[in-house]
Amino acid sequence: MSQGIVYVTRRERFNAAHKLWNPGWDDTKNLAVFGKCANPNWHGHNYELFVTVKGIPDPDTGYCIDLKVLSEIIEEKVISQMDHKNLNLDVPFMTGKLTSCENVAIAIWDQLAEGLKGQSCQLHAVKVYETENSIVEYFGGH
Amino acid sequence: MSQGIVYVTRRERFNAAHKLWNPGWDDTKNLAVFGKCANPNWHGHNYELFVTVKGIPDPDTGYCIDLKVLSEIIEEKVISQMDHKNLNLDVPFMTGKLTSCENVAIAIWDQLAEGLKGQSCQLHAVKVYETENSIVEYFGGH
Amino acid sequence: MSQGIVYVTRRERFNAAHKLWNPGWDDTKNLAVFGKCANPNWHGHNYELFVTVKGIPDPDTGYCIDLKVLSEIIEEKVISQMDHKNLNLDVPFMTGKLTSCENVAIAIWDQLAEGLKGQSCQLHAVKVYETENSIVEYFGGH
Amino acid sequence: MSQGIVYVTRRERFNAAHKLWNPGWDDTKNLAVFGKCANPNWHGHNYELFVTVKGIPDPDTGYCIDLKVLSEIIEEKVISQMDHKNLNLDVPFMTGKLTSCENVAIAIWDQLAEGLKGQSCQLHAVKVYETENSIVEYFGGH
Amino acid sequence: MSQGIVYVTRRERFNAAHKLWNPGWDDTKNLAVFGKCANPNWHGHNYELFVTVKGIPDPDTGYCIDLKVLSEIIEEKVISQMDHKNLNLDVPFMTGKLTSCENVAIAIWDQLAEGLKGQSCQLHAVKVYETENSIVEYFGGH
Amino acid sequence: MSQGIVYVTRRERFNAAHKLWNPGWDDTKNLAVFGKCANPNWHGHNYELFVTVKGIPDPDTGYCIDLKVLSEIIEEKVISQMDHKNLNLDVPFMTGKLTSCENVAIAIWDQLAEGLKGQSCQLHAVKVYETENSIVEYFGGH
Repeated sequence: MSQGIVYVTRRERFNAAHKLWNPGWDDTKNLAVFGKCANPNWHGHNYELFVTVKGIPDPDTGYCIDLKVLSEIIEEKVISQMDHKNLNLDVPFMTGKLTSCENVAIAIWDQLAEGLKGQSCQLHAVKVYETENSIVEYFGGH
Repeated sequence: MSQGIVYVTRRERFNAAHKLWNPGWDDTKNLAVFGKCANPNWHGHNYELFVTVKGIPDPDTGYCIDLKVLSEIIEEKVISQMDHKNLNLDVPFMTGKLTSCENVAIAIWDQLAEGLKGQSCQLHAVKVYETENSIVEYFGGH
Repeated sequence: MSQGIVYVTRRERFNAAHKLWNPGWDDTKNLAVFGKCANPNWHGHNYELFVTVKGIPDPDTGYCIDLKVLSEIIEEKVISQMDHKNLNLDVPFMTGKLTSCENVAIAIWDQLAEGLKGQSCQLHAVKVYETENSIVEYFGGH
Repeated sequence: MSQGIVYVTRRERFNAAHKLWNPGWDDTKNLAVFGKCANPNWHGHNYELFVTVKGIPDPDTGYCIDLKVLSEIIEEKVISQMDHKNLNLDVPFMTGKLTSCENVAIAIWDQLAEGLKGQSCQLHAVKVYETENSIVEYFGGH
Repeated sequence: MSQGIVYVTRRERFNAAHKLWNPGWDDTKNLAVFGKCANPNWHGHNYELFVTVKGIPDPDTGYCIDLKVLSEIIEEKVISQMDHKNLNLDVPFMTGKLTSCENVAIAIWDQLAEGLKGQSCQLHAVKVYETENSIVEYFGGH
Repeated sequence: MSQGIVYVTRRERFNAAHKLWNPGWDDTKNLAVFGKCANPNWHGHNYELFVTVKGIPDPDTGYCIDLKVLSEIIEEKVISQMDHKNLNLDVPFMTGKLTSCENVAIAIWDQLAEGLKGQSCQLHAVKVYETENSIVEYFGGH
């Protein structure tokens, strides 16, 4: 059997409200730039989240990571804090950030990089579907 | 060619914020009954809407209804009023109603029954996906 | 175990070219009524077909119908004649018919009603997806 | 607001092994009739289950049924007994039944009809996807 | 917040007719090589297109690119020229090219590389689904 | 037209039974580590397989590889050996391996690397969906 890095992905979902709003701008500019995404009373999405880790399968289990463990880490670090919440108001790790899908993906990456410390596999990618037509992927940074 | 009623369905989508909240109850009861769906700062969904009309195809066009026409009626009566809105605060035809998926489907039916007056086909069904796991269908009432 | 009618559905697919064009009208009227669907050089679709039959499961097999048999009937009566074809030019049972999705569904029904003669189950519904947003369903006529 | 019956559907999933095998037949006949579905060492599926109930929304909640309650009933009566099981060997309510998708749907109906007793809504439909191409729907019997 | 390249994807769709046909070959060879894809009267597909760009989110908007802008570029450079068209006959930028899904993806890349000039993000990938089973991805060349 | 590597993906499916079980461990440890995945009487899945090859399109056909050829190779090397089988008992190339999704993907890679010898394109990726929430991807090793 060939041996190489294996990539394992877990899908999770959360439903949240948000709006795109730059607090440094007045209402007119926010509405001009963000359009209907700046609706003052919020709108929302069914976010679909794909978390990918990479590693070498453990010979005793055949697992890179037990998906129950990965799912629990995602639950603790992301879903329990974002599901049925307002991303602008309720989520500590989004404070002070524009809730664009780009920033949501980066923030989830940072949460999971923290949550996966001590695991034998490494975080590889965070992919967030805001809608079926709008998708963001992040592979970490510095 | 056999002749019978044909059912034509158009899918549309809208993204909205809402919460489940009975104004006649205090916070404790709302949270007890609706759980995380009662989060005070809202949550939201990508709603998927399937509108079905029924009729006999016109021999000149082969259409029960021109789907461009159906799509425009749905846009005017539903999407333009619900997309990127707060269902509890921003939607005139939801005023005073609990925004359960059941009530959303009934309200959309009533909007479309109005919008389809004068068309040769009849409204048959409104199907609303709140999530991939939660679906409501309504066929009208009295 | 309760006993009642069971509905069994088989999904099949075909890819075809077509255009909407009423030969009794001139070009101007065809383009006015059918818009881009009347493009003279055709366009096309991945049609998705759901065929539903109904019956009582055979106590020896647990089947209303062997889905291999249903699939072969659909293949012979529909897919082999429509897949990778031009619905306006290549399909004998569409001759002289406008290739609206409504008429495609009716014509498929008629083909399958013929093909299912002698089976112990009955044709119940033909559902055709022209796109993910445009769907037609037919339950037969007279 | 119009008033009529509302249909509410919950999707659940379970992964199970099974084979099609009539114990009254010898191996040759089983393989002749059921083909690869009779593989002696089993095969399996990701079953997708759509349970539909119908009723009038409660004016205080907007719900026909709290989907958490419906989900718990499905979990207790179906998922906990079928998920990660062998449908032929491990599921008490399938004992002595051929595990065709037709019989799986009927057996799930009977389980849920029992489980929904005392609820204000009624069971309307059980829909089971054995694969993306093979679907069975049951509306009860006598 | 970590900082790195973010990948943003927009899904669009177009419905088109085509056939696989090498004008340097006679009919016999075309049919032998391309089979039913060489049907003289064309066939067609619902093409699904995923366009991915990469960049660093703008601190004022949280966007790599405003998806409305990306969508308009795709509309102008691709969809308006391919949707409801014949890829072999109607599309200037496909002239003289075999309309395999590989060539469709490359041609769309070239169109979008041109269309994205002057944007702060870069084209990363073009992914084209010809059917649910047949997918091509292109990341550019020289 | 730009020239670069093109990636072509074919989706195939197979339905199989399996269990996670380390023969070097006793029952208690297997159940403790693998939970319900260790159910002694097996469970199963609808596996979805995406095979990606890469290459330069042939100027005469526009193909990296004829997808009929790729599909036949996958059929011979993978589907015919895994579909409607028990992955632990019936599949020669899984003998002695834990049937985790990671190992299934690696084993399929090795089968296809063998099957694609002599083709002008190269195997790039094997992606296996065990469920809609659990996905493994492998790009080869040494």
